[in-house]
Amino acid sequence: MTQAIPAERLRRAQEATAAAGTDALLVSPGPDLRYLTGYDALPLERLTCLVLPAEGDPRLVVPRLEEPAALASPVAALGLQTVAWDETDDPYALVASLLPGARRVRVDNHMWAEKVLRLAAAMPEAEQGLAGHVLGPLRMRKDAAEVAALREAGAAIDRVHRRVPEWLRAGRTEREVGADIAAAIVEEGHARVDFVIVASGPNGASPHHELSDRVIEQGDAVVVDIGGTTPAGYCSDSTRCYSVGEPPAGYRESYDVLLAAQVAACEAVRPGVSAEAVDAAARDVIADAGYGARFIHRTGHGIGLETHEEPYVVAGNALPLEPGMAFSVEPGIYLPGRHGARIEDILVCGEDAGERLNLTDRALVVV
Amino acid sequence: MTQAIPAERLRRAQEATAAAGTDALLVSPGPDLRYLTGYDALPLERLTCLVLPAEGDPRLVVPRLEEPAALASPVAALGLQTVAWDETDDPYALVASLLPGARRVRVDNHMWAEKVLRLAAAMPEAEQGLAGHVLGPLRMRKDAAEVAALREAGAAIDRVHRRVPEWLRAGRTEREVGADIAAAIVEEGHARVDFVIVASGPNGASPHHELSDRVIEQGDAVVVDIGGTTPAGYCSDSTRCYSVGEPPAGYRESYDVLLAAQVAACEAVRPGVSAEAVDAAARDVIADAGYGARFIHRTGHGIGLETHEEPYVVAGNALPLEPGMAFSVEPGIYLPGRHGARIEDILVCGEDAGERLNLTDRALVVV
Repeated sequence: MTQAIPAERLRRAQEATAAAGTDALLVSPGPDLRYLTGYDALPLERLTCLVLPAEGDPRLVVPRLEEPAALASPVAALGLQTVAWDETDDPYALVASLLPGARRVRVDNHMWAEKVLRLAAAMPEAEQGLAGHVLGPLRMRKDAAEVAALREAGAAIDRVHRRVPEWLRAGRTEREVGADIAAAIVEEGHARVDFVIVASGPNGASPHHELSDRVIEQGDAVVVDIGGTTPAGYCSDSTRCYSVGEPPAGYRESYDVLLAAQVAACEAVRPGVSAEAVDAAARDVIADAGYGARFIHRTGHGIGLETHEEPYVVAGNALPLEPGMAFSVEPGIYLPGRHGARIEDILVCGEDAGERLNLTDRALVVV
Repeated sequence: MTQAIPAERLRRAQEATAAAGTDALLVSPGPDLRYLTGYDALPLERLTCLVLPAEGDPRLVVPRLEEPAALASPVAALGLQTVAWDETDDPYALVASLLPGARRVRVDNHMWAEKVLRLAAAMPEAEQGLAGHVLGPLRMRKDAAEVAALREAGAAIDRVHRRVPEWLRAGRTEREVGADIAAAIVEEGHARVDFVIVASGPNGASPHHELSDRVIEQGDAVVVDIGGTTPAGYCSDSTRCYSVGEPPAGYRESYDVLLAAQVAACEAVRPGVSAEAVDAAARDVIADAGYGARFIHRTGHGIGLETHEEPYVVAGNALPLEPGMAFSVEPGIYLPGRHGARIEDILVCGEDAGERLNLTDRALVVV
């Protein structure tokens, strides 16, 4: 979607750049560029770079070839001036020429190394830092349109989870089930599949397992953690647990603990509560039930134009939650060699409480 | 697919690292890591990094949480030792500790800036360069398994192009048609949609146009340029031109020129011919017909684990083609404000000639 982008994002980023004592941000295609300008350029080898000085007019350096695409994006409505370069020009020297005398620049956190090092060579006097310190705090606080976009992403992945029982059965491989899920992620309204985890039986004990050729068996518990990006650029991410027939002995016991932990963490969300307190809310329930050592990761990550972004819901992050912050709540219990379970919703912090953006039943789904 | 990865890739990369006078390569998740180890890790905020010294044993630094996934990948069969770090460890210091005394390291070209700068801070004595200079020449020469994987990707995107007439008709928007194509890219055997260009009418004159809300009209010429990544990690990329009813006056004339140019470039491919000669073979036909100024980009790009990689088929690239090199041949003719056309196949250089991996008819498809 070519949604309008509020021009104040660029202005606020400039203010934050100045406040950080930096001369300019240099932003290549990716979530930061999309946030600031609405331009969803593919990250490719030719340099596209927003040059955002702390003061003065921002410019978008683009390959001549891609200038029409840039101007067809919300960039035009923002009145952002493009500076096109031809196939035989040096775009790094061009960027440097737009920032004479710059001493401190910040590059976007995902800029490719090849661009980082070539910019460093073109601007030998400028120290490089990371733009994330400036843009992270802005991106973390979602406006109403962004919350609506995340709600839409949540509904889309919920529709996929509701269909998982169509595909999950004994005798099929994780990979076969994953292919059906991937197709449905697109069918149900995402522009892109970001990840598909189908972790059956003992594979469920590896939190970042993706897909394997393991044949799903009767009695397997299966962790299904899936997400994609919508046409508006916002990400979905939700985990539910399934079992093919009755789950293994003891599974429901630990699942009940996990569900209570996930509910407790969701209910802990409100403005002023710290990110680490939400982590603790889940962790305490799991630890009290004796599974503390089996919950081997943080409780969650922020989400928006990226699947993982700030704020991280983790011990040590004392950041107080504010309305508009969006993140996952996804505790897990992993029993190596046996099975695992994880329950994940995306929440957005509201004025009084958290709003869950994933609304499928959190109970174990027996198929 | 967890294909076996030839161990000689690591060995040859080490030899090339030494030959380049570098102490080590540092490779984060992405195509270089997948090429060297078969490990298809998502690029996320936690550091995963192959530490490949010019001499001595390579190590894979991984978050503890992802160690099982790494070991479930071909990494285990390679005998590659993993070094896991816990959530509270500093993984950058860990990498530095594995390379005591290193003075010159090379980071993979797509490593995120946040990792590049943190590695630089953790290894202040080591000058950073790009691993692409070492790995590009290796990755550019595909082995038989890679060529087979590209052939499979080509067949998958061909199946999608054959179905485009099902969806393309007057009254639908580019975005609606694009959504159908995206779903089919996954259905027909890709793990991921990489890009979907549906450029109708005047939008066809912008080579990197993607999708808009423009309603397709009777008589529109439409450029459809699509690609995805297969489960084995190899990319597809093919462009065909369609028209909804008879195309605009003059369109077939320039299309015939374009087709002749594309055929000429495909026929120019053989070992020993330079990449720029292939570019010239297409360009000369177009220039001779008076459209030289309307062919505004290079003729092609290499393809493999990335959609765009070496070798680039462009003026100035005197690299002689060798068997196993794979790249696109995709001349275009763009008439601003009116329409455009581009025809694209992936070719692999064989022992005597190029093999086209896209085999749908290159004639204009009237729907």
